[in-house]
Amino acid sequence: MEKNTRTIIFIGDGMGGLPIDGLDSQTTVEAADTPAMDRIAREGACGLMHPISPGRPAGSDTSHMAILGYDPQKYYRGRGPFEAKGVGIDVRPGDVAFRCNFATVEGRTVVDRRAGRIDKGTDRLAEAIRENVGKIEDVQVIFEPSVEHRAAMVLRGEGLSHEVTEIDPHDPGVDYLESRPLEDAKDRAGAQKTARVLNEFVRRVHEVLEDHPVNEERRSAGKPPANIVLPRGAGTAVDLESLKDRYGLDAAMIVEVDLVRGLGKYLDMDVIRVEGATGGLNTDEMAIAKAVDEALDDHDLVLANIKAPDLGGHDGDCEKKIKAIEKVDRALGYLLDNVDWDRTTIMVTADHATPCAVMDHSGHPVPIAFFGHGTCPDDVERYGERPCAKGIMGHLRGMQIMDVLTNMMGRAEKFGA
Amino acid sequence: MEKNTRTIIFIGDGMGGLPIDGLDSQTTVEAADTPAMDRIAREGACGLMHPISPGRPAGSDTSHMAILGYDPQKYYRGRGPFEAKGVGIDVRPGDVAFRCNFATVEGRTVVDRRAGRIDKGTDRLAEAIRENVGKIEDVQVIFEPSVEHRAAMVLRGEGLSHEVTEIDPHDPGVDYLESRPLEDAKDRAGAQKTARVLNEFVRRVHEVLEDHPVNEERRSAGKPPANIVLPRGAGTAVDLESLKDRYGLDAAMIVEVDLVRGLGKYLDMDVIRVEGATGGLNTDEMAIAKAVDEALDDHDLVLANIKAPDLGGHDGDCEKKIKAIEKVDRALGYLLDNVDWDRTTIMVTADHATPCAVMDHSGHPVPIAFFGHGTCPDDVERYGERPCAKGIMGHLRGMQIMDVLTNMMGRAEKFGA
Repeated sequence: MEKNTRTIIFIGDGMGGLPIDGLDSQTTVEAADTPAMDRIAREGACGLMHPISPGRPAGSDTSHMAILGYDPQKYYRGRGPFEAKGVGIDVRPGDVAFRCNFATVEGRTVVDRRAGRIDKGTDRLAEAIRENVGKIEDVQVIFEPSVEHRAAMVLRGEGLSHEVTEIDPHDPGVDYLESRPLEDAKDRAGAQKTARVLNEFVRRVHEVLEDHPVNEERRSAGKPPANIVLPRGAGTAVDLESLKDRYGLDAAMIVEVDLVRGLGKYLDMDVIRVEGATGGLNTDEMAIAKAVDEALDDHDLVLANIKAPDLGGHDGDCEKKIKAIEKVDRALGYLLDNVDWDRTTIMVTADHATPCAVMDHSGHPVPIAFFGHGTCPDDVERYGERPCAKGIMGHLRGMQIMDVLTNMMGRAEKFGA
Repeated sequence: MEKNTRTIIFIGDGMGGLPIDGLDSQTTVEAADTPAMDRIAREGACGLMHPISPGRPAGSDTSHMAILGYDPQKYYRGRGPFEAKGVGIDVRPGDVAFRCNFATVEGRTVVDRRAGRIDKGTDRLAEAIRENVGKIEDVQVIFEPSVEHRAAMVLRGEGLSHEVTEIDPHDPGVDYLESRPLEDAKDRAGAQKTARVLNEFVRRVHEVLEDHPVNEERRSAGKPPANIVLPRGAGTAVDLESLKDRYGLDAAMIVEVDLVRGLGKYLDMDVIRVEGATGGLNTDEMAIAKAVDEALDDHDLVLANIKAPDLGGHDGDCEKKIKAIEKVDRALGYLLDNVDWDRTTIMVTADHATPCAVMDHSGHPVPIAFFGHGTCPDDVERYGERPCAKGIMGHLRGMQIMDVLTNMMGRAEKFGA
């Protein structure tokens, strides 16, 4: 067992795709200029990955869970707990967590889902919510603001369930919703109680915020008041073993998305913030690459995610997606030049496909390539969906990745004698 | 989500095979002249499919179940319920169903398993059975004739089990059998009761039919009397969710085999009969193709199966099998020319291999190709076991097909956020 090996999981968010007519039937990954990825494929071991299983479109949360070896089909109970953990709430098993928007309503009608992208005063609004809506029935309410109009909320108490419909109507100009138990709720009583508490939360928050000084100031300044909070994305927190406990690896995460960052905190990984990592196309990919390289000094595993490719996919803008993929490639180029590959393994993949033609996540497999320590290179010449399909790694599922990586690191335990 | 997409599952029954010396070591699919399949492979995404799992020979029933996403390892309890449903009996969960032959016996010796392929009068014989053998102990007996000597029978009552040996000896010239509980029956008491009722059924049916006017007439005409019914293929009916409920898809089935048709009815698919679809080598494949094209007008999913290739395999007649495969190809050619592929995905495969050298189903993987909407084409040039093995789809199991297809249709639900 070599104990000084390290591994990098490098994820281009939503980087997988489908052939595009205008790109000569290439995918965006295939069309992009990616000398680093191509070297990784050429000198490494390639394959395709199904984050969940063939044909199932994965979310970023479920895919990262699977890649880190936590079976989402067993443990995933909604995104709320990761969001809440991401903004710093100490989420505990059994809690039901929500992501929230500060929004503007007139009567019940949502006139602005983001309250004019409010960027000041939400700490004071949150304090008012904490003081006045700290408890509903026997349920403790924990509320924490995040950046701009975003926030997270946790309900803590007996007999709660995430199986409730959302308050947020997702569209402006319509009424916000009354939460109800999901039709197929397994814990019906829990869902009923949770929906009741949630509706009461929204009602009382609206009362507290309507004439709050922050909103009086906003009205005077001609800005829409943040006079309500719209919860969505309910999730029940489950007890997940830390990554350190599960694999004995000191792990770090360098990502741009709160949701994934929340998962990292949930797994007790070191979540490292990087200046200039914006989550957009203007992100500083070299700063991310340097941070990964530095994190390797005192971590066994570093997971990095660059968000930009996913944005191009969701926008259906393949030029934007290609530019984003080329940024991912530059970060990889830095790592190729600076990391000690005699004791480091890197895996380059996507957490899911976001084909420009689909403008959403799809269930197509994504390319994957392993490079460096412990790999068995094949004769694939380029990174991409079709080239990688011919690689030695075959078709892997997300849940198999940690076994494959710990083996390449020489840290997998023998099963048997 | 694109909601106006459609998908075709096109199955050449038993079309998979093994290399044949006399065919220059090609399989029958590889040796056949199949311009349509080859175009589908060339412009589509290829792979191999294991209907159940590697090496397990599948029946047509278990394979079609798996391809439609109903796990046969969980839900399959014998073919009887599908046969019974196929002939129009309202099978209910808990029923034990059998397929039956009208046959000719002298004493206990079966002299003709098909009663001279009797084609008239079985409705009157069935009526006599219903009148005289409608109930045994506390068990209701439901009996329905099908084409020629075929029929189906259902036992309905408390505490029954399909785990019983057959009455039908499957060979002429030997005695018909006494049903007994299977040695490894899990529900021993249920199997004992069922065997007892079944033996009593056969005894009383023989009594009722022996001197029935229909048989008196047959004897006068020098024909063997249909003086007994030989049940086989016991199966317990289970509660299967309809395909519409499971996937939200309006589905049709255009097949030539009662067994598969019964499955279609069981899943509440629209089972469409096509004039000229004989189930033999003389079948009108163009009528089937046209029916598939028409069914796409008001269905989201159409499953078609052409039976003929399987017959050639069972007969060990590779010339016959090649001719049958070329018929399948002509049907596919019609579809290639007439379907709107911008919104349609087709999957072409076999439900199992029936290699001519084996003359029965085998557990070898079968070629699979996806073409049209939502596919990621690879560089496979021809349809066949060996060419498709190099395709981007890798090795799929039957149970993964519906996930893969609904994803290609853009109708798969995202798991996670």
